[in-house]
Amino acid sequence: MKRRLLLVSNSTLHGAGGYLGHCQQQIQEFFGEQVKRILFVPYALHDRDSYAKTAREKLQSLGYEVDSIHEAVDPVEAVRKAQGIFIGGGNTFRLLKTLYDNKLVSEIQKRVLQDGIPYMGSSAGTNVATVSINTTNDMPIVYPPTLTAMGLVPFNINPHYLDTNPDSKHMGETREQRIRQYHEEPDAPSVLGLREGSMLLVEGNRATLLGSTKARLFSRGKPATEHEPGSDLSFLLTDGV
Amino acid sequence: MKRRLLLVSNSTLHGAGGYLGHCQQQIQEFFGEQVKRILFVPYALHDRDSYAKTAREKLQSLGYEVDSIHEAVDPVEAVRKAQGIFIGGGNTFRLLKTLYDNKLVSEIQKRVLQDGIPYMGSSAGTNVATVSINTTNDMPIVYPPTLTAMGLVPFNINPHYLDTNPDSKHMGETREQRIRQYHEEPDAPSVLGLREGSMLLVEGNRATLLGSTKARLFSRGKPATEHEPGSDLSFLLTDGV
Ligand SMILES: [Ca+2]
Ligand SMILES: [Ca+2]
Repeated sequence: MKRRLLLVSNSTLHGAGGYLGHCQQQIQEFFGEQVKRILFVPYALHDRDSYAKTAREKLQSLGYEVDSIHEAVDPVEAVRKAQGIFIGGGNTFRLLKTLYDNKLVSEIQKRVLQDGIPYMGSSAGTNVATVSINTTNDMPIVYPPTLTAMGLVPFNINPHYLDTNPDSKHMGETREQRIRQYHEEPDAPSVLGLREGSMLLVEGNRATLLGSTKARLFSRGKPATEHEPGSDLSFLLTDGV
Repeated sequence: MKRRLLLVSNSTLHGAGGYLGHCQQQIQEFFGEQVKRILFVPYALHDRDSYAKTAREKLQSLGYEVDSIHEAVDPVEAVRKAQGIFIGGGNTFRLLKTLYDNKLVSEIQKRVLQDGIPYMGSSAGTNVATVSINTTNDMPIVYPPTLTAMGLVPFNINPHYLDTNPDSKHMGETREQRIRQYHEEPDAPSVLGLREGSMLLVEGNRATLLGSTKARLFSRGKPATEHEPGSDLSFLLTDGV
């Protein structure tokens, strides 16, 4: 399998140089020098023009030209011609619905899994790359036709993973409780909690945790496990974990 | 309209006497002495037996017998015979899906809006009483057939409303940002942010904020407004706010 993915927890890290600042080195290593133009997907935010401007400025500073899919006459054709794809964060429900509305899900799957073009996602763009958006943190502001996502990996991710604050007086569910509730449902796949600052690099059947923070892995009926930056997480790519 | 609703933000308030402790006086005033038995709906949590036990113990201490709908042979029939209903919190997606799966949505609407039996909801049980669950905080662990809910009031509620923490280094969206994103969508109704400790009492066409905390109201294209406990919020019951 040719698959190449860079799945980032968050696009902006507190105190780490603004938009995509904390992962710019990984972005350059990921897209490399062969990719000249990146297709940006701004669907997760309402103001697509402004979002595309932000992404374009940052990626240009790293040496890449950016085409925003919302400016393309034919979005499917834009995916067919893309050298690499970056889907940004925002609201995951809005993003997934728009991908289905524009008939892009199967097209992106084909380009990434068959043609091997590099796919980068951040936050919501990471959620839609997994099995389903069942473990997004976002508010369901719109109703997508399904929660099933692109399935570029056979597990789910919880971006912006947040540890339980023992001093909190707030009584809403903790992040861990929410993921445990997901695992009360039958057939729910494993969930990788990516703390802010971490990202997962997938190259073929090899997965490596990158960045500055640990990740927490939840599997149905098992205790959670912690994984240091640099860890080999390739075992997650085996179906049915 | 006979409607009588007690829509509570949260079932447990930090430091306020355990499950339903902070609202027990309002519960007794709401169900009064005519209601002898309350039908409890535990669908939002996985362990329904344990949840029903918790609710039964608390409501018995306030003078009410409890029938849990998950123990009924015919849930629709249980709603038809109920003197009053209490839907507890947990996961809003799981709750709404189960209400639809068991064909209870229209039956509860009828009993509450036509027959005037009292309806109490807490957290997820409050979300499903509103126009839609678009403003739940919960993780979408299952896929309900729609996000449209029971529409016992013509607006939405965000339970466990949480103010933005200016010291937070976390980059996920704040609660206010999430609700603002909802209002970027066309036709999104107003959203009442009920902080923990607050609840809304609806009697016919009169709505009153009760409890110990203020509520924050969001309407599309308008600045948010703050409302003190005791405020008359009846204007929210006019359609199209
Ligand atoms: Ca988001
Ligand atoms: Ca909940």
